[in-house]
Amino acid sequence: MAARKGNLMSVRADIKVLDATLRDGGLCNNFEFSDEFVTELYKSNVKSGVDYMEFGYKASKNLFKKTDYGKWKFCDEEDIRKIVGENVSDMKIAVMADVGRCDYKTDFLPKCESVVDMVRVACYIHQIPAAVEMIEYLHNLGYETTCNIMAISQCNSNQVEEALEMICASSVDVIYLVDSYGSLYPENAAELAKEYLEIAEKNGKKVGFHGHNNQNLAFANTIETLSYGVSYVDATASGMGRGAGNCAMELLLGFLKNPKYSLYSLLEFIERYMIPLKQQGIVWGYDLQYLFTGQLNRHPREAMTFTAEGRSDYCEFYKSLLENF
Amino acid sequence: MAARKGNLMSVRADIKVLDATLRDGGLCNNFEFSDEFVTELYKSNVKSGVDYMEFGYKASKNLFKKTDYGKWKFCDEEDIRKIVGENVSDMKIAVMADVGRCDYKTDFLPKCESVVDMVRVACYIHQIPAAVEMIEYLHNLGYETTCNIMAISQCNSNQVEEALEMICASSVDVIYLVDSYGSLYPENAAELAKEYLEIAEKNGKKVGFHGHNNQNLAFANTIETLSYGVSYVDATASGMGRGAGNCAMELLLGFLKNPKYSLYSLLEFIERYMIPLKQQGIVWGYDLQYLFTGQLNRHPREAMTFTAEGRSDYCEFYKSLLENF
Repeated sequence: MAARKGNLMSVRADIKVLDATLRDGGLCNNFEFSDEFVTELYKSNVKSGVDYMEFGYKASKNLFKKTDYGKWKFCDEEDIRKIVGENVSDMKIAVMADVGRCDYKTDFLPKCESVVDMVRVACYIHQIPAAVEMIEYLHNLGYETTCNIMAISQCNSNQVEEALEMICASSVDVIYLVDSYGSLYPENAAELAKEYLEIAEKNGKKVGFHGHNNQNLAFANTIETLSYGVSYVDATASGMGRGAGNCAMELLLGFLKNPKYSLYSLLEFIERYMIPLKQQGIVWGYDLQYLFTGQLNRHPREAMTFTAEGRSDYCEFYKSLLENF
Repeated sequence: MAARKGNLMSVRADIKVLDATLRDGGLCNNFEFSDEFVTELYKSNVKSGVDYMEFGYKASKNLFKKTDYGKWKFCDEEDIRKIVGENVSDMKIAVMADVGRCDYKTDFLPKCESVVDMVRVACYIHQIPAAVEMIEYLHNLGYETTCNIMAISQCNSNQVEEALEMICASSVDVIYLVDSYGSLYPENAAELAKEYLEIAEKNGKKVGFHGHNNQNLAFANTIETLSYGVSYVDATASGMGRGAGNCAMELLLGFLKNPKYSLYSLLEFIERYMIPLKQQGIVWGYDLQYLFTGQLNRHPREAMTFTAEGRSDYCEFYKSLLENF
């Protein structure tokens, strides 16, 4: 068995923390964050020592109408600059682009003209060739790149190995293990992380982890995969993210031993901005309906509908999931 | 490193699930559950395949006034029998007795006259000699016994080893690892579990785990310690328990592969009884104030006061904890 790297007392300088509040959290409120919210989150992340802040998606304006979403669905250069200026900080700026749902050949400036540092390319496993093409294009523009292979808990092992070999042969910097359905247990997550790491390390790539909290395991899976050598980890303020949400940044920063990370600035942000957001009725976080889809290893879409409809007939919902298995 | 026992696909027949809803949950509502609630929980546990149901504490009526608490603080024989009759089921009945806060020499019938099967003796590490005396007494009355050493995260390793040796020399059946402060990470919990198991197995004893959810790790720690050979695991409906609560039974039953366990009966109970309890204003579960005390490895009492006072000034509260460190 692969050994753990470091221990619970020590600092691992290779660890990079990415705040995905605007991006995964944006899926809860249609990306409609106020400029004040985004500015204060940016300042809080800088003060807390966060390494990357993801601002949202670079979505295709041909596929998605600009007026139907908040601006962080599109992350126009001028919108990011309005918040960060020239980003005079040690924190890097990331955006996500979905394979097949972005116009990457027209919507990305060369890196030297952009305040964005990293583009995270999200895809399903059958889209790896398209992801590789995008990664090469964005790498040639000068960006750091990641490949986030989603819904990995539904892929078979042969597929995963082949996908990793294909991605590792590209110019990508980081390969993300993504537990989209929140269905992985720490033992599963660790086994997958070791597989990712083995292939990635041979090819000089880093590995990241992005969890979902359907079974209250987003944080546990994050620190379990970290312990085996995953070095890029996603978290969000108050765990805000689609459905059951993500690994909470406040759990992660409290865990990490590197003194560069500071919990307190984040707490100020949470108290002033995240708790009011919940009180306004934006809904995310662990609940029975997400637990069910996590346990059954399936997309949370039915659970999200159940939530949106304000239903509380959990037993009927559970039976309907079993009927449509 | 000790190997894991079984795997994520297989059944471990040695596993015993204990429902602690009335006992740890009773700390949230002063043990004031209606008879209907308790009866339906009992029926639900039997149907769900739960192995033990803990009804509450056997607290001293000299120290605690009967009129100040609900009856499950005291667990009189006739009160339990009113719910379970002769307990014609495969599920066993447990009660907890705290060292120094019970009158065990007067308050326990011989097992042959009682419907209770197991007495769980809870103590702090400096009370081990008193715990051993109690265990011998209760064992001689005919009960199964456990020793639940609380607040283990604040004990040093030498103490823990000595305590385990002393307990293992007694007639106890099960030794519980108790993460009272919810401060253990899965790596810590696994290391401690291996230490408990090594000494326990040499002496023919079983090991149990009781988690708290301060860092959203109660379930993760439970299944991590299970994987190394812990066989008695505590959970509660909806995670109801002091402060941040416990491992949620619905997470645990969804994880276990033994077909004797059934999630659905529990879901019916949760929908009909646990959700209304929350709606009535009984408060438990993960929240920032408990995260803080968990991260700082201290008793949640200040966080419980913060909750009871309905405060939401998390930053001030966090600073006050750091000042009193």
